[in-house]
Amino acid sequence: MTTVAPAAIGTLTATGTKLGAWHHRHLIDVDVLSWAEIELIMRTTDEMKGILARPIRKVPALNGRRVTTLFYEASTRTRVSFETAARNLSADVVSISTATSSVTKGESLVDTIRTLEALGAEILVMRHGVSGAPYLAAEVFGGHVLNGGDGWHAHPTQALLDLYTMRENLPGGDLRGRKVVIVGDILHSRVARSNIWSLTAAGADLWLCGPATLLRGMDRWAAAWSGGAVPGHGRFNVTTDIEAALRDADVVMGLRIQRERMQGGLLPSMREYAARFQLTAARLRLAKPEAIVMHPGPMNEGVEIAPDVATSGRSVITEQVANGVAVRMALLYLLAGAHEAAVGEPAR
Amino acid sequence: MTTVAPAAIGTLTATGTKLGAWHHRHLIDVDVLSWAEIELIMRTTDEMKGILARPIRKVPALNGRRVTTLFYEASTRTRVSFETAARNLSADVVSISTATSSVTKGESLVDTIRTLEALGAEILVMRHGVSGAPYLAAEVFGGHVLNGGDGWHAHPTQALLDLYTMRENLPGGDLRGRKVVIVGDILHSRVARSNIWSLTAAGADLWLCGPATLLRGMDRWAAAWSGGAVPGHGRFNVTTDIEAALRDADVVMGLRIQRERMQGGLLPSMREYAARFQLTAARLRLAKPEAIVMHPGPMNEGVEIAPDVATSGRSVITEQVANGVAVRMALLYLLAGAHEAAVGEPAR
Amino acid sequence: MTTVAPAAIGTLTATGTKLGAWHHRHLIDVDVLSWAEIELIMRTTDEMKGILARPIRKVPALNGRRVTTLFYEASTRTRVSFETAARNLSADVVSISTATSSVTKGESLVDTIRTLEALGAEILVMRHGVSGAPYLAAEVFGGHVLNGGDGWHAHPTQALLDLYTMRENLPGGDLRGRKVVIVGDILHSRVARSNIWSLTAAGADLWLCGPATLLRGMDRWAAAWSGGAVPGHGRFNVTTDIEAALRDADVVMGLRIQRERMQGGLLPSMREYAARFQLTAARLRLAKPEAIVMHPGPMNEGVEIAPDVATSGRSVITEQVANGVAVRMALLYLLAGAHEAAVGEPAR
Repeated sequence: MTTVAPAAIGTLTATGTKLGAWHHRHLIDVDVLSWAEIELIMRTTDEMKGILARPIRKVPALNGRRVTTLFYEASTRTRVSFETAARNLSADVVSISTATSSVTKGESLVDTIRTLEALGAEILVMRHGVSGAPYLAAEVFGGHVLNGGDGWHAHPTQALLDLYTMRENLPGGDLRGRKVVIVGDILHSRVARSNIWSLTAAGADLWLCGPATLLRGMDRWAAAWSGGAVPGHGRFNVTTDIEAALRDADVVMGLRIQRERMQGGLLPSMREYAARFQLTAARLRLAKPEAIVMHPGPMNEGVEIAPDVATSGRSVITEQVANGVAVRMALLYLLAGAHEAAVGEPAR
Repeated sequence: MTTVAPAAIGTLTATGTKLGAWHHRHLIDVDVLSWAEIELIMRTTDEMKGILARPIRKVPALNGRRVTTLFYEASTRTRVSFETAARNLSADVVSISTATSSVTKGESLVDTIRTLEALGAEILVMRHGVSGAPYLAAEVFGGHVLNGGDGWHAHPTQALLDLYTMRENLPGGDLRGRKVVIVGDILHSRVARSNIWSLTAAGADLWLCGPATLLRGMDRWAAAWSGGAVPGHGRFNVTTDIEAALRDADVVMGLRIQRERMQGGLLPSMREYAARFQLTAARLRLAKPEAIVMHPGPMNEGVEIAPDVATSGRSVITEQVANGVAVRMALLYLLAGAHEAAVGEPAR
Repeated sequence: MTTVAPAAIGTLTATGTKLGAWHHRHLIDVDVLSWAEIELIMRTTDEMKGILARPIRKVPALNGRRVTTLFYEASTRTRVSFETAARNLSADVVSISTATSSVTKGESLVDTIRTLEALGAEILVMRHGVSGAPYLAAEVFGGHVLNGGDGWHAHPTQALLDLYTMRENLPGGDLRGRKVVIVGDILHSRVARSNIWSLTAAGADLWLCGPATLLRGMDRWAAAWSGGAVPGHGRFNVTTDIEAALRDADVVMGLRIQRERMQGGLLPSMREYAARFQLTAARLRLAKPEAIVMHPGPMNEGVEIAPDVATSGRSVITEQVANGVAVRMALLYLLAGAHEAAVGEPAR
């Protein structure tokens, strides 16, 4: 891995203000982040949103640096978001999808990672169907691993963009005491898992809601959480009662219901799920009048969310997509070490 | 959508001559274009061909602007043509093919368009199997929609590159009174549909020829046209008689015959089509000695066109491909509003 | 094809030293290269490695030039290597894989090549399953064809990166008299075929080893070679005796064993191949203590090579991958004619 000379990087802030220190070589889950580091990511994202508001939304911060996206699961929106973020910072992007490539031709993940590094990859954005795969990648990769979602485990950039979007929409940008409800397939959701960490760290009053089969094990987890297992984190609540969950909520997030769950016997039918848990205008009347509606996408409109809710004035779903590019720019920038080089302390 | 400051755009013409005004936010079919606007596209294409003749075929006109190609039907040549055009203008390109992506994962077209806009798309080049889909996209998209072909409906960039290629090859660049013959599967051809509009506007004597099953409904359309339904447009002729069509033609265009038509019962066999309608050297002796041969590609050589005709001196088929890049550069440039900014009137 | 003005190209060497002359328009196999030309490629690769060692690994040498990769067989690592090489030289890259494209939609290879040229391709990197296909491409293409592997025939960039890696690791960078052993499926290997030429030209004592069914015809070839059929080239040896092959070897290269060979009846089973020919630590004790281990990748670990050997200190397998980018940069640079323009003789 090469070290980037300060000259190669532009200072992001006009004032050159020190944003704080970043010490992680990889980002595989939000659970390694201190609150100060989360704040650093949020403020760096602010800077990136400033860049996106310019007529030419591109800065040379990562000029000549190599970002490789390696997607073992298809996800056009997430891949395009990362690649747009990388290009906005002038990085060179190599894009590999196993669906259309030969990387799986009997080759082990470890060999693939070593090969990509030898081909020049410096930051590896990885999505993999197996929980924990990015940890293995990080062990052998000489550069930086940024997790784009692994199995049911984690989706840190989604959790961070969700957090950023909530702060942007809540008065004072403060989640403390705010009721945040996540409704849907909690069991299989890496989005929910990563959000549990960051939202309890932010002090939210977090509620997870869905059919009992899609909440399995969550109550024990919630109990451990409140038992002081994680210092500084608030507890979270688990319920199958959609009305209790939505009542006086500040934030309501729907999760995608996947057709495959029917086959696994976890849901009787899409129609029954929709009847009991769909985010409808009627149900949302239980929430606070100013409550916002979120969804990580892609949506199954008419299943977990009603079409009119998805496009209503309280929906911030496309805002989430736009913030996703800014958050990913911030993380690529911080991981690349560009941050320290640009705004390191002048003297010690 | 951001507005581009003049400083961000180079002036294309050395003299800064005003080329004319462009008022369309989208281009979904040629039928919205006045003749003056078609002339503007033709002259802008001239400028773009000048750029393509330089050793380094790249200008910064759309530097930092975002072009997204969204192809619901596979078409490598059209996609590469648009992407090359966009890169020649220094735009950033995001390329999405549904064949290799997850965009269709239950998500509606409207949601996909909204997501792409939130990801930063400014100009959306779209190909879709359903006629009219780009109109729906244009309703929800905040930027510019450029139709790369929709169902049987329209293929405006193909019609414009065909027109440009004809003008380049006809004495005086004038189509008025010139006999232009399109032979093949007229019924299912968006190329033919868009060409009907632009060629009758250009004053050509247009002939459409093919088996009766592939001409269905065209004679009524031709009759309406000549009845003054479209002011300023010449009439066109429909015939199953290939010899009448080719006699004294100035331009002969073959259309691709698709194997699927056999299954639909519209054609008895490829062999029979070839025997009756293939563009052969013998048949082309009926046309004018200087007549040119065109084809939108990809060709089924030996079906709609004989191999020796496709590569003969009168074939301008690869010229069409090269002009396609220039026409698409012109349209991206005009749609991006770069034109006005660069050569706007200095005082009013 | 446009000619590149010297001004458009940076001089690669700080001193502007003349590296030698390059006269080939295409590179389809190594068998057209004189030893002086191979040396030119090796020295140009040295320069490219110097660029890759910089913090920003990018030079403007091919700025605005068009490299198109056309892969009729999937090979992510080779495609990414070529594309990274092209981008490192600031070329614009168009990437076409037939697996995910419509280029085969009944269109002939010749038409595809003509179309890509009309779309702007200047250097065509091509991989094709049919031996000799790049020769056909070179006949119709107005630019430069660089073979990325064709059938069982040739893989010149792999042979050159192998040669480069051996020179880098052998004392004095000299292969003369060094025992080089290639073990595996020689019969179907374009890597072996191209390596036979370059390694015998380099004066190596070359040994090919594998089961008799995967060596068919090789002994007659080896005999012709030693009969003086190719002036200046050393002979090579063919054996089924893995121990004789490995004894006192300086370089040991494993080739991928493909599962398809089982179905063709050429191998009884993967397990039997592994038992008799796998490169294991035990077998490698027969080689010289300082012998290096190579593999073109992707590896079937546990079949042709033991996992501990692949990652041992003597393995230069990831070095091969890194050198592949540098060699491909060198070849793109030389083919583009950038070389002559940059360091042509000032006076004659």
